[in-house]
Amino acid sequence: MISVQNALEIIEKTSRNYGSETISLEAAANRILSTTVYATINMPPFRQSAMDGYAIRQTTRIAFNVIGESKAGDANNFSLNADEAVRVFTGALVPDDADTVIMQEHVEREGEKIQINTMPKKGANIRNTGEQISKGNLALAKGTRLNSAAIGFLACLGIAEVSVFTLPKVAIIVTGNELQEPGKNLPIGKIYESNASMLSAALGAIGILDVQFCKVEDDFTATKEAIASKLLENDVVLISGGISVGDYDFVRKALVELGVEELFYKVNQKPGKPLWFGKKDTTFVFGLPGNPASALTCFYVYVLPLLRDLGGYGKTGLEKVSAKANFSFHNKSGKTLFLKAYLGNDSVDLLDGQSSAMLHTYAKSNALACVDANTVNLSVGDIVECLKFDF
Amino acid sequence: MISVQNALEIIEKTSRNYGSETISLEAAANRILSTTVYATINMPPFRQSAMDGYAIRQTTRIAFNVIGESKAGDANNFSLNADEAVRVFTGALVPDDADTVIMQEHVEREGEKIQINTMPKKGANIRNTGEQISKGNLALAKGTRLNSAAIGFLACLGIAEVSVFTLPKVAIIVTGNELQEPGKNLPIGKIYESNASMLSAALGAIGILDVQFCKVEDDFTATKEAIASKLLENDVVLISGGISVGDYDFVRKALVELGVEELFYKVNQKPGKPLWFGKKDTTFVFGLPGNPASALTCFYVYVLPLLRDLGGYGKTGLEKVSAKANFSFHNKSGKTLFLKAYLGNDSVDLLDGQSSAMLHTYAKSNALACVDANTVNLSVGDIVECLKFDF
Repeated sequence: MISVQNALEIIEKTSRNYGSETISLEAAANRILSTTVYATINMPPFRQSAMDGYAIRQTTRIAFNVIGESKAGDANNFSLNADEAVRVFTGALVPDDADTVIMQEHVEREGEKIQINTMPKKGANIRNTGEQISKGNLALAKGTRLNSAAIGFLACLGIAEVSVFTLPKVAIIVTGNELQEPGKNLPIGKIYESNASMLSAALGAIGILDVQFCKVEDDFTATKEAIASKLLENDVVLISGGISVGDYDFVRKALVELGVEELFYKVNQKPGKPLWFGKKDTTFVFGLPGNPASALTCFYVYVLPLLRDLGGYGKTGLEKVSAKANFSFHNKSGKTLFLKAYLGNDSVDLLDGQSSAMLHTYAKSNALACVDANTVNLSVGDIVECLKFDF
Repeated sequence: MISVQNALEIIEKTSRNYGSETISLEAAANRILSTTVYATINMPPFRQSAMDGYAIRQTTRIAFNVIGESKAGDANNFSLNADEAVRVFTGALVPDDADTVIMQEHVEREGEKIQINTMPKKGANIRNTGEQISKGNLALAKGTRLNSAAIGFLACLGIAEVSVFTLPKVAIIVTGNELQEPGKNLPIGKIYESNASMLSAALGAIGILDVQFCKVEDDFTATKEAIASKLLENDVVLISGGISVGDYDFVRKALVELGVEELFYKVNQKPGKPLWFGKKDTTFVFGLPGNPASALTCFYVYVLPLLRDLGGYGKTGLEKVSAKANFSFHNKSGKTLFLKAYLGNDSVDLLDGQSSAMLHTYAKSNALACVDANTVNLSVGDIVECLKFDF
């Protein structure tokens, strides 16, 4: 049995590969760039008017003849004499002969003649070519998370596809004769299966939508075959249940026979003591406890940072927040505890129903309050480290 | 022209309807329950063993004959005499005749005989029927956001479908002759369209994936027809561009002719002054500025809280965080400013490229620093209210 810290370190140090793929810009929101993107055009691509107004050549005169109009999208590059102006609109091409745009509010127009009230500085109200970015310059660096503005920025450079880190392919295997599908009748001795949909929800929240799913009975051969097939096709295999030492817990034996290297088994924590972690080739395997609250806690604490890292997001798990305890607690277990909690502005409440089999208060919680294995007494007002989640 | 505060209040006070729909539990992650859910079964549905061990009747004796085995999923309810035990595993049905489960670690077994080292309290290691929740009791209240644990909790009650608030149907109309699709050649005078993909990314981040899209030229009839068709089929219509006072800005005129009630037009802010907001029947319309940074800022500040509320999430927009300014700023505009910023632990930096046409630094920002219209001078160390975003 190893410590929580040790288990996290083992996961963090396990070597891994990062994949990348080219996808449409529309599909790339919130993904991580796997290559640096350079601008293939100037932005703006031409001198744009920043206002509705009149394009002229800077001069001391105040009267001009309007010889044409350039609206957004027009390609006409008017030739201008010193006494001539072109009507321009926001975003329109400013003729090469013009060097200044006068706001329409500063102009009086009669027919095709205008008189200006205020002459702005030379270059006023013109967005110069490449002002935002010049062709060939770095647009967004490798490792950038594509927020909405980044998607817009790449689109405005004409980029329709980007190279991003692939999200890991994940399979969920749930084990247990007792598991019945929700929506069906429940025979005596059975319970409804909940870990698959719960873990799918958590995976979906971090963008992993294409999840393989498989349910197996407590049977060695079936367990081994299910794991073998999922190992081949996935980057991460999550197995729930069957990892304890009971006579019908076949997962560990199956993993060993399949040549999955055991990197740790059993962590000095509650819930989630029988957590198993291993790797075969490039595929990681977590043997999660079957109890739903244990499975979800182990997902948040151990699985999430690995999945995020594989997707290029860095080795980041849940956000850590220090908060004052609104409760006292006696930790007689000698284990690190992850307690269902509700984190307020700067304090944290403990919720009922801490049993690893129970989800009813987990459903209303937004954090895990972490009590270290060495902390025996926690008093009201003590600072507790919390792991915050919103999914 | 109205103040930012006034504009936000007008949106907040506009009457609205909330829709609901019944969807599969798998699809309901992160959605909001529109009806309270009651447990239709006891959970656990029967007395479960919490351990691998032996079920017995509490007694002073220490030796028992093992008469059978109950593994998880088995339905066999053994009759037990005082000197008899049943081998049980975690999650298995505990026979009605038994009242205690002895952990296997506290038992020595030879053949079908066991001897126990430590007799636990009566009731030990048994999860009683309905211990987590009893049939008929409130499981999750209307208004609960379904996090992963809530999905698992409903699944364990056998619930396969839930009633949730519908997410608003949204259409994006982008206007402008100058707009070219990314991935195609860029003729002189044109720019690549970026608002549709940018706003789609922002909508996707809050779960709104089914977005209608339409691009129209700067033509009154085409603009009016496009808006008319989108009004009919959507809860919120976002129009980008065409809302200023230029000769080719037809959006406002089209909205008026279509009978969309103007609730405000023009806000004393930068960027986003020409923001338009109105409503027809149950459909809300935002006329967003065409400049990408203005459009996104107006989305974050004004559109987001309405969309969230329509989806049942409450009138919540971006998270507000107070932070120390790492910059000084002179606000000579008399307007409320929303500045592209990067929020660190407790301080905030201003980014370059504040122009409303520019997205390159918005792509690297994670907050808008809000400078009130009445704030003329902001000094290093002053507290600035920031709107934080991660999408």
